[in-house]
Amino acid sequence: MSEVNIKPLADRVLVEAAPAEEKTASGIIIPDTAKEKPQKGQVVAVGPGKVDEPLTVKVGDEVLYGKYAGTEITVEGKEYLIMRESDIFAIV
Amino acid sequence: MSEVNIKPLADRVLVEAAPAEEKTASGIIIPDTAKEKPQKGQVVAVGPGKVDEPLTVKVGDEVLYGKYAGTEITVEGKEYLIMRESDIFAIV
Amino acid sequence: MSEVNIKPLADRVLVEAAPAEEKTASGIIIPDTAKEKPQKGQVVAVGPGKVDEPLTVKVGDEVLYGKYAGTEITVEGKEYLIMRESDIFAIV
Amino acid sequence: MSEVNIKPLADRVLVEAAPAEEKTASGIIIPDTAKEKPQKGQVVAVGPGKVDEPLTVKVGDEVLYGKYAGTEITVEGKEYLIMRESDIFAIV
Amino acid sequence: MSEVNIKPLADRVLVEAAPAEEKTASGIIIPDTAKEKPQKGQVVAVGPGKVDEPLTVKVGDEVLYGKYAGTEITVEGKEYLIMRESDIFAIV
Amino acid sequence: MSEVNIKPLADRVLVEAAPAEEKTASGIIIPDTAKEKPQKGQVVAVGPGKVDEPLTVKVGDEVLYGKYAGTEITVEGKEYLIMRESDIFAIV
Amino acid sequence: MSEVNIKPLADRVLVEAAPAEEKTASGIIIPDTAKEKPQKGQVVAVGPGKVDEPLTVKVGDEVLYGKYAGTEITVEGKEYLIMRESDIFAIV
Repeated sequence: MSEVNIKPLADRVLVEAAPAEEKTASGIIIPDTAKEKPQKGQVVAVGPGKVDEPLTVKVGDEVLYGKYAGTEITVEGKEYLIMRESDIFAIV
Repeated sequence: MSEVNIKPLADRVLVEAAPAEEKTASGIIIPDTAKEKPQKGQVVAVGPGKVDEPLTVKVGDEVLYGKYAGTEITVEGKEYLIMRESDIFAIV
Repeated sequence: MSEVNIKPLADRVLVEAAPAEEKTASGIIIPDTAKEKPQKGQVVAVGPGKVDEPLTVKVGDEVLYGKYAGTEITVEGKEYLIMRESDIFAIV
Repeated sequence: MSEVNIKPLADRVLVEAAPAEEKTASGIIIPDTAKEKPQKGQVVAVGPGKVDEPLTVKVGDEVLYGKYAGTEITVEGKEYLIMRESDIFAIV
Repeated sequence: MSEVNIKPLADRVLVEAAPAEEKTASGIIIPDTAKEKPQKGQVVAVGPGKVDEPLTVKVGDEVLYGKYAGTEITVEGKEYLIMRESDIFAIV
Repeated sequence: MSEVNIKPLADRVLVEAAPAEEKTASGIIIPDTAKEKPQKGQVVAVGPGKVDEPLTVKVGDEVLYGKYAGTEITVEGKEYLIMRESDIFAIV
Repeated sequence: MSEVNIKPLADRVLVEAAPAEEKTASGIIIPDTAKEKPQKGQVVAVGPGKVDEPLTVKVGDEVLYGKYAGTEITVEGKEYLIMRESDIFAIV
C-alpha cells in the first residue's frame, strides 16, 4: 500500500485501484485496450466523516465500488480515486 | 447457498441471482438468448444497516427485486448483485 | 382472492389486478388488444410499513391505483403488481 | 353532488369536475372540441390526511385546481379526478 | 382592488396583475401584441399559511413576482394569478 | 447608491448591478455588444431572512454573484436584480 | 499566496488555482492549448460556514477539487475560483 500525504474531507475516501487483470481466468493475456476498469481497490486515506457519522472503512481495507464511482486525482505523480464512502459497496 | 467473505456497507445486500429458467412452463427448452433475467435470488451477505435502521432481510432469505436493481460484482470468480435493501420488494 | 406466500418489505403492497373489462357498458365484446389496463385490484399482501408509519390498506381491500403504478412480478406462476402504498389512491 | 363509496388514502381528494361551459359569456354555444377543460369542481371524498396534517378541504367544497392536476379515475361508471390536496389552489 | 370570494389554501396568494403599460416612458402607445406581461400586481386574497409559517403578504399589498409565476385562474369572470408566496419577490 | 422603496421577502436581496466595464485594462474602449454582464453589484434592499436565519449581507454591501443569478426587475424605472442570498458568493 | 479583501458567504471558499504544468514529467514543454486545467489550488479566503457547521479548510491550505468545481470570479484583476467547501475533495 502506498503512503500518501493527503487528508480527505468529510466522508471522502482515497482509494488506490487494484491493477486491471493481466490474464483471463484461463491464462490468456489481455491486451491493454481490452482490460476492464477494476472495481476493486485499497483504501489509502479516509476523511473524518460527517457530524455524528464516522466512516466505516479504514485505511488498508480492500473495497468494492461501482464502475463509475469517484473522481480520478493525481497525488505525487500517482493516480488515485477519491469517492464518498456511500460509493463503496462492500469490504472484502 | 454460497459462502462469501464480503461485508456489505450500510444498507447494502449481496444477492446471488437464481439461475434463469431453462424451460417454459410447458417444457420447451429456452435458448440462452431468450432467457429472462431473473428477479429472484438468495441473500448471501447483508450490511449492518443505517443508524437506527437495521436491515429486515437476513442471509438465506429468498428475495424478489426489480429488473434493473443492483450492480453486478464478481467476488471470488462468481457473479453477484449488490443492491440497497430498498431495491428489494419482498421475501418469498 | 389468491393466497400467496410472500412478505412485502416496508411500505410495499402486493396487488392482484382486476381482470380487464370484457365488454363495453353497452355490451360489445372488447378485443384483447383494445382492453384497457385495469387500475383496480385487490390487496393480497402488505408490508409491515415504515418506522412509525403502519400501512392503511389491509389484505382483501379493493384499491384504485395509477395507470403506471407498481412493478409486475410473477409469484407461483401468477402475475401480480407490487407497489408502494403511496401509489394507491383510494380504497373502494 | 354525487355520493360515492370510496375512501381516498392520506392527503388525497376525490373531485367531481364541474361540467365545461356550454356557452361563452356572450351566449354563443361552444362546440365540444372547443370546450376548455374545467379547473373547478366539487369535493366528493377526502382522505384522513397525513400524520399531524389533517386536510383543509371538506366534502362539498367547491375547489379550484391546476389544469393538469390529478388523475382521472372511473368510480361506479362516472369520471372523477383524484388529486393531492396540495394540487388544490383555493376554495371558492 | 377587487373583492373576491375565494379562500386560497396553505401558502397560496391570489394576485390581480397590474394592467400592462399602455405607453412607453416617452409616451408612445404600445400595441397589444408588444405589451409586456406585467410582473406586478395586488394581493386580493391570501391563504392561512403553512403550519408555523404564517404568510408575510397581506391583502392590498402591491407585489413583484417572476415572469412565469403562478397559474391563471378565472374567478367570477375576471382573470387572476394564483401563486405560492415563495413566488413573490418583494412588496413595493 | 439608489434609495428604493421596496421590501424583499424572506431571504431575497435587491442588488444594483455595477455598470459594465467601459474600457479594457489597457484602456481600449469596449463596444456595448462586447461588454460582459457584470457579476458585481451593490445591495440596495434585503429581506428579513428566513425563520432563525437572518441574512448576512446588509444594504450598501458590494457583492459578487453568479453570471445567471437573480431575476431582473424594474423598480421606479430602474433595473435591479433580485436574488436569494444563497446566490451571492461573497462580500468585497 | 495572494491577499484579497473578500469575505465569502456561508460555506464558500475562495481558491487560487495552481498554475497549469509547464512541462511533462519527462521535461517536454506543454503548449498552452494542451495544458490541463489544474485541480489543485490554495485557499485564499473562507466563509464563516453554515449554522453549526464551521468549515474545515483554512486560508493557506493546499486543496484538491473536481475539474468543474466552482465559478471563476475576478477580484482586483486576478482570477480565482469560488466554490462550496463540499466541492473540495481533500487537503494535501
